[in-house]
Amino acid sequence: MAKLKNLIFYLRIKKLTISAVESVSGGYLSYLLTKTPGSSKVFKGGLIVYSPESKNKLLHIPLPLLNKTLGVSKSISILLAKRTKQFFKTDLAVSLVGFASAPAQKGIKVGTIFMAVADRYGVASKKILLKGSRDYVRKQASRMAVDLLCRRLNSKH
Amino acid sequence: MAKLKNLIFYLRIKKLTISAVESVSGGYLSYLLTKTPGSSKVFKGGLIVYSPESKNKLLHIPLPLLNKTLGVSKSISILLAKRTKQFFKTDLAVSLVGFASAPAQKGIKVGTIFMAVADRYGVASKKILLKGSRDYVRKQASRMAVDLLCRRLNSKH
Repeated sequence: MAKLKNLIFYLRIKKLTISAVESVSGGYLSYLLTKTPGSSKVFKGGLIVYSPESKNKLLHIPLPLLNKTLGVSKSISILLAKRTKQFFKTDLAVSLVGFASAPAQKGIKVGTIFMAVADRYGVASKKILLKGSRDYVRKQASRMAVDLLCRRLNSKH
Repeated sequence: MAKLKNLIFYLRIKKLTISAVESVSGGYLSYLLTKTPGSSKVFKGGLIVYSPESKNKLLHIPLPLLNKTLGVSKSISILLAKRTKQFFKTDLAVSLVGFASAPAQKGIKVGTIFMAVADRYGVASKKILLKGSRDYVRKQASRMAVDLLCRRLNSKH
């Protein structure tokens, strides 16, 4: 909670705005980013793109690319972050995709998570493999996306 | 959790799809709706419209109407549900707006929540007043929006 408070405080001081896009976590990442009072000053909006159609319709991610990995890949996490940054016209955008509990598909292990942060300098991305219940994976992945955002702010802003 | 499982099971059996739009809860409502395995079969997407600009840009809610109540009113919750249903082309859409912790504004008490469910029969809406911490209000409002959705399904579908 202290980390989230510090994050929002830092963004407010620096006059930076953020947005989020997520599939696997289903809204939990945005819930964390809006947990502290005053977050509405910096968090402009979030997209939960739970289906390939929504990733395609809202953010124009090509359907062949989505079908290849069911939306779970480094390149898709990067595209989602970049396009969500443009979509909400924010200084930064953070993305989170992965498989939380479905059986391994397209050769991708359950617990595989890709996340990315886009800003004016480019993109930082990360792949992780989590083990645990569906709920644990969704929450832990969200916390790690917040960490990636904090590290990006620390190193570039 | 049993309620969420039953909800997703019911929607799958009835071949009904849902989407969500939220401000005050910041993603927690969508997180609940995607908590159970198999939810991706029925939950198509969610929008976190945390700023008036995002409500206006994504769902064309008129800015004068948003400014009058800072986005917290029965009519806005209904418009959001209806337009999110169209936006994601789902059978149902559920909306949630309110004030969780900010000082009372525009004469609206902290803890005031409006929610609505739109479907092919029309709209069900509800106003509640919650007392408690910011986090409690956000989570409890989300749980009550799930309840409204369940009651609507029970009475009309």
